[in-house]
Order: sequence, then structure tokens, then C-alpha cells
Amino acid sequence: MNWEAKFSSDAGAIKASEIRELLKVLADPGIMSFAGGIPDPALFPMLQAGRIAENLAAEPDRDCQAMQYSQTEGYPPLRHWIAEHHSTPCVTLGTENILVTNGAQQSLMLLASALINGGQTIAVAEPTYLGALQVFGTRRARYMPIETDRDGLVMESLESACKNGARLLYTIPDYQNPGGFSLSEDRRRRVVELAHRYDVTVLEDAAYRSLYYDAPPPPSLLELEGEYLGPGQWDDRGRIIQLGTVSKTLMPGLRVGWTIAPRILLERLVLLKQASDLHTATYNQILAHELARDILDRHVGTLRQVYGQRRDSMVSALQQYLPDGVDFTEPEGGMFVWLTLPTGMDAKPLLEKALAEEKLAFVPGAAFHANGGGENTLRLSFATCSAEDITDGMKRLSALIRREYLAIAA
Amino acid sequence: MNWEAKFSSDAGAIKASEIRELLKVLADPGIMSFAGGIPDPALFPMLQAGRIAENLAAEPDRDCQAMQYSQTEGYPPLRHWIAEHHSTPCVTLGTENILVTNGAQQSLMLLASALINGGQTIAVAEPTYLGALQVFGTRRARYMPIETDRDGLVMESLESACKNGARLLYTIPDYQNPGGFSLSEDRRRRVVELAHRYDVTVLEDAAYRSLYYDAPPPPSLLELEGEYLGPGQWDDRGRIIQLGTVSKTLMPGLRVGWTIAPRILLERLVLLKQASDLHTATYNQILAHELARDILDRHVGTLRQVYGQRRDSMVSALQQYLPDGVDFTEPEGGMFVWLTLPTGMDAKPLLEKALAEEKLAFVPGAAFHANGGGENTLRLSFATCSAEDITDGMKRLSALIRREYLAIAA
Repeated sequence: MNWEAKFSSDAGAIKASEIRELLKVLADPGIMSFAGGIPDPALFPMLQAGRIAENLAAEPDRDCQAMQYSQTEGYPPLRHWIAEHHSTPCVTLGTENILVTNGAQQSLMLLASALINGGQTIAVAEPTYLGALQVFGTRRARYMPIETDRDGLVMESLESACKNGARLLYTIPDYQNPGGFSLSEDRRRRVVELAHRYDVTVLEDAAYRSLYYDAPPPPSLLELEGEYLGPGQWDDRGRIIQLGTVSKTLMPGLRVGWTIAPRILLERLVLLKQASDLHTATYNQILAHELARDILDRHVGTLRQVYGQRRDSMVSALQQYLPDGVDFTEPEGGMFVWLTLPTGMDAKPLLEKALAEEKLAFVPGAAFHANGGGENTLRLSFATCSAEDITDGMKRLSALIRREYLAIAA
Repeated sequence: MNWEAKFSSDAGAIKASEIRELLKVLADPGIMSFAGGIPDPALFPMLQAGRIAENLAAEPDRDCQAMQYSQTEGYPPLRHWIAEHHSTPCVTLGTENILVTNGAQQSLMLLASALINGGQTIAVAEPTYLGALQVFGTRRARYMPIETDRDGLVMESLESACKNGARLLYTIPDYQNPGGFSLSEDRRRRVVELAHRYDVTVLEDAAYRSLYYDAPPPPSLLELEGEYLGPGQWDDRGRIIQLGTVSKTLMPGLRVGWTIAPRILLERLVLLKQASDLHTATYNQILAHELARDILDRHVGTLRQVYGQRRDSMVSALQQYLPDGVDFTEPEGGMFVWLTLPTGMDAKPLLEKALAEEKLAFVPGAAFHANGGGENTLRLSFATCSAEDITDGMKRLSALIRREYLAIAA
């Protein structure tokens, strides 16, 4: 069978992720990994999750319902919680604005199916989240990469994309994956204005929003659009769609996230979700709801403390050990630091050396670039290693970069 | 915002399910429902599931991993189990042939994304599973409905569709939803031949396969294709793709199903799955695996007994009480009986009367018809009501049909 000849044009366009192949070596426990964009499992609230499961088991009817088919829109108490906790002074969300999904990844897939036709142009940050590029790839989107600096998207670059036909912007305003930077408040207000001036729909991926280690982040795009439109206007006139998840704050293996959208759009997403997998696993939604309701704030407080220390270790080790000519972001939240090596250095062979000589892993940055480029960039995650390992790892990585840099310069 | 103008052509084509609207009344506990295609939650193996959860909690490392991100292909022990239990004399499956999905519904969505371009022609039984039509609708497929009789798909009708450009067949050979009929062994062999003669890919939905109440079903299309091709040939030359699930045998709220496909196709499905939601919830896969390994056979034995009695009650009540001129299938497994009312009767107003006068629900059959028609058909499920309620319900439904029939004839 020649399956290639049978693939749809959408499926034919997808490529396997090089990163994925590279990272198969991470199964080796001897590797110190700064590669994965995953939370530290040692911080999962397992005791609390166990208690919720026990309580559920003590109520046989509810326990059975947790394993039965349930409505596509999601478990009503979870939708209530999401609506309540994401309403802003000018945007009062109801459950009719909330769809529970299998993580923000599925929110992206449903939004892409709903809003993108083959060949349409999408504005994405350079660099941006790889999983978003995989989704848009299944819709055969074209990209207009938007320049970024330490304050996130560069406005001139965004406006130029809007003028040149971008009708959708995908952005992670807070502690971006992979860049580690955040969009400043001024720029957020400007994004809202540009979206309305140029008729652009904005997908605001808020996955890392509550993981801040210094001051809280500026208001979300959703909140600022509410202000821009005035109270009660968003459901009719809003064009900022927000994606959320418990993957970074509670436990990603649950696969629970959500989409916040105006009602008319949400109804269409519900139909797509129903065709996609009927509904998100019922038990998982109950667990996510009860954990969110009972412990989320306190738990996120703990995460901020632990991840914040790890962020500090990484940033100070890089400041101390990296050779001149290597640039890196100093994130105020999230999980990632973004390194820019001197032009001419390539992060892919560097990774091969890092694995072979130092048993260290990171992600080369090229994959996060929608239209190619970025060979001299790389992403480091500080979420899963201890502060001590981070210091040690950054010291050794810096020494490797210095050796390679000298070898190239010679 | 005019969202309609922004919807993709795929999303613009989807329609809300009328059934879904009709069935919102089922939340009323006073209704005796033969409508839902759902298993009886009283039969869920909750104690065994609770024990597995307890054992997992006693192993903190494994317990944390159950809540962590995991590989897109699925939990390896579950993939092993699926491969082992679905291999046939001539088709030896390996884990590389298995993708775990969020139920067979997601298997269908991924296969449709991989294999269907807009406007392509698909052969489906008349009637067929509504959820499949929803999936194919998101790919803007055209349908060639295949006639059915008590032995399933009519071969002349199928061959004619193959000759006229159908490149994909979706079929539920065992105890079809909604028709209740099964494809005879002779016809199964013929489907395999036709698929090879006319270069047709076949999606074999095996959701109900193990729920047989008399003799076991004939060999699956997958098994027969293995025989047709000879040992060891399927991975290279097979065109039968099989979909499975634990939704009907264990618990649907878990959202665990799978796709069995030749390696080259499976790799592409994995990429689509990764873009769709990264992976199926880890804990849910562990639970499905351990339940399948430890109790599935015994548990399905219990289901056969209970559902078999309910099937008997429904069939004998319909034989006893239905007026002449009403036809119905006598299923050898699954969950459904399919009624054909005299021409001129319409099941939709009948449902309204059944709800209002008898507090009884069923599903009008028109929605299961790809290109319209079937207004005089309806689906009854015998899975969730007791044998006594079924007898009482069928007696009252039969009386209602008789009254309506006389009213029309008068």
C-alpha cells in the first residue's frame, strides 16, 4: 500500500518533529535535562488528589458518573470555576463562554479547525511554541513571523503583518514558551487596538500566566479588551480568545484545559469537540475542579517559590559563566530561558556534543521558528532540575559553549 | 463580531445535532429512556478500579508518572495488551501498529484528517453511526449510502459505490449502531475482496464486537484480510484499519480507545494526535490497561448476561405488542434494536408524543442517514433499562405506535 498517495493534503503537510527524535535519548536517566517543557512531578499534589479520589469512591453514584459519558461542553462545576476565575472587571464570563478541552493543545486544534482555511496567513512570534506550529501545520497555514525583543512582540512588526493580510495572531503574552519574555502592558494595549483596527482574531495562550516569580504579570489581553470595549461588550464584540490549562499548575497527565470564547464561536467549537472525542474524560474534570477549588492558590504559591529559586539559579549561573557574546533572557515567570549564541554557531551540533561530552540536554531553537532560521538559538528549562544541578549544568554548558566558540573563532 | 464570516469552510459546514437537542430532556429523571447509546453505569467495575487506584497511590513514583505528560503513541503496556489481544492468525500486531486515542471517536477523527480531502466520497451504511457522520462532516465529505438488510451491507450496493468513486468505507460489522444487524461472514470476505479490487480503505469500527449474546461474531475484517493476504503481509499491504474502545466494555468516561493500522499510516496518525492533544490522559490509560489485563474477560461475561437478558426482553415484548406493519431487527449483540415504521409515519412527532404522553424516549432514525431519508425509522437501546422496564416501555411504545398508525390510516 502506498499510504503517502492516500494522505489528505493536510496530513501530507505534517512533518515529524526533529526535537521529538532528539529527545528520545532523554529516557536515559544519566542525562541532566534542561530540554523538556514539563513541570516537576515531585511537586504534583498527589496527596490531595488521592483524598479527592477517596471521597468520590465513598459516593457510589457520583463515582459511577465520573466514569460515564458526559456533556461535550465540560463538567458544569469546572466550567463555573473557570468562568468565575477568569472574569475581569469588564468581562463577566458565563459557563456558555467556557469549553473544557484536553489541555490547551486541544483548544488550539479546535480553534485552528474553526478559524483557519488552507493557505491563510497567521501571525506568530519568532520564536513561538512548537505545538502551535504543529496545529497550524495541519491547516496548511502560512506564517508571518513577528519579531520579538525583551518586551515580547515588536509592534511595528505586528502592525506590518496586520497590514499585509494576517487575520489571526497566536501569542503567549506571559513568560513565553520558548522565549521566556513577556509582553509589556503598553504593548498589550496596542495589540488590542491593532486587533480591532485590522480585524484580527487573537488567540491568547495563558498557560504560564500564574507562574510569576517577581511581580504579577500585566493584565491579560482578555482583560484589556474588556476595558477597551467597555463593560458587557466582549461577548458580542470581543476578538480575544483565551486558552488555559491546569497542566503547568496542577498535573499535565490529567489533560484538562479550556477555551474562553464569545458564545457564538464557543458553540461552534463545541460541535468540533464533539466530533473530535465526544468530551474530556469525566473523572479528570472532577479531579481538576476539586483541586482548583480547594488547593490551587496555595499550591501555585509553592510552585512560585520552588521554580523561582530554580530560575534564580539558572540566571545567576549563566550571568557568571557564559562567555561574552552569548545573550539570554531573564524570565520573570514560566519555565524557560532563551539563549542566543554568536552568529555562526549552531545549537544542533552543540546539543550532540552536550549529550556526548556532558550528558546535558536542551532544545535547539530552530524548531520554534515558523519559517526557518534561529540555528544559533536554544531553549533551557529550569523547571525540573534542582537549584544545585542547574548551577552545575549551566557551568558545564557554558564551558562547552566557550570551547565551541573558540574552536569556531580559530 | 460576525463569527459566521470567520469560520473555516470545514467548521462552517458542521450542523448541531438535532438529536442532541431532543435528548436534553433526558436529564429529567421521570423519563424512561431507550435513547442513549450509553452503557449501564451500575455495571461499571468501580471496586476493581478503586483497587487499582489504591495500588498506584502506594507507589509514589508511578503515581506521579500517572499525572505527568507521556508519549503520544500511548502507554506502552496498554499498547502491548491491545496488540496481543487483536492479533489474528495471519496478522501479528506490534506496538508500532497501535495508537491509543480518546475513544474510538478520536480514532475516527484522526483517520478522517489523515485520509479525507474536502469533497471526497465515502461509503457508509444506511443507517450508520451519527458520530462518524459528524467527523466526516468536518472534512466536507460526500456520501454514498450503502443499502443494508438483516445481514448488514448489501454487496451489490457496495460494489456499485466502489465503481462510482468511493475510496473509503466506514463500517461497524458487529451489532451495528444504530441498525443492530451484523455483517455475515460471506459478506465480510467479499468486503475484503472489493476493498482490494477497487483500492478502497476500510475503517472497521469494532466498538461492540465483544458484546455478543448468542454465538460469537464472525471473524473481523482485519482477520479476514490477514487470511486474504497471507501471513505477515498486512503491515505492508493491508487496507483494513480497525478501531476499538473500552467505552462499551469497561467505562466510557475514561475516554480510552485505539486505532490499529499499518505502521506507515500509524506514524502519520501519531503526528496528528500529537497536534490534537499531545496524548491521552496517562492515568486513564494505566487504569484501562490494568482493568483490561485483570478483569476484562470476566467482566464482559457479566455484561453479556445482563445485556443479553435485556435484549431478550426487548425483542420478545416487541414481537408480542408491536402492530403488524412495523419491522424491527433482532440483534445478536450490542445495544440497539432498529424499528422501521410503516411508510408515512414519522418518528420525530412520534418522539414528541412518546415524551409527552408516555414519558418514553428513543432516537428518531433520520439523523443516522447520511443523505437524508429514514423519517419512519427509530433506534431503541436496551442497555440501560431493567428487563421489567423494557417490557413495560415496549408495551406502551407499541400501543402508542398502534394509536398513531390508526390515526394516520383513518
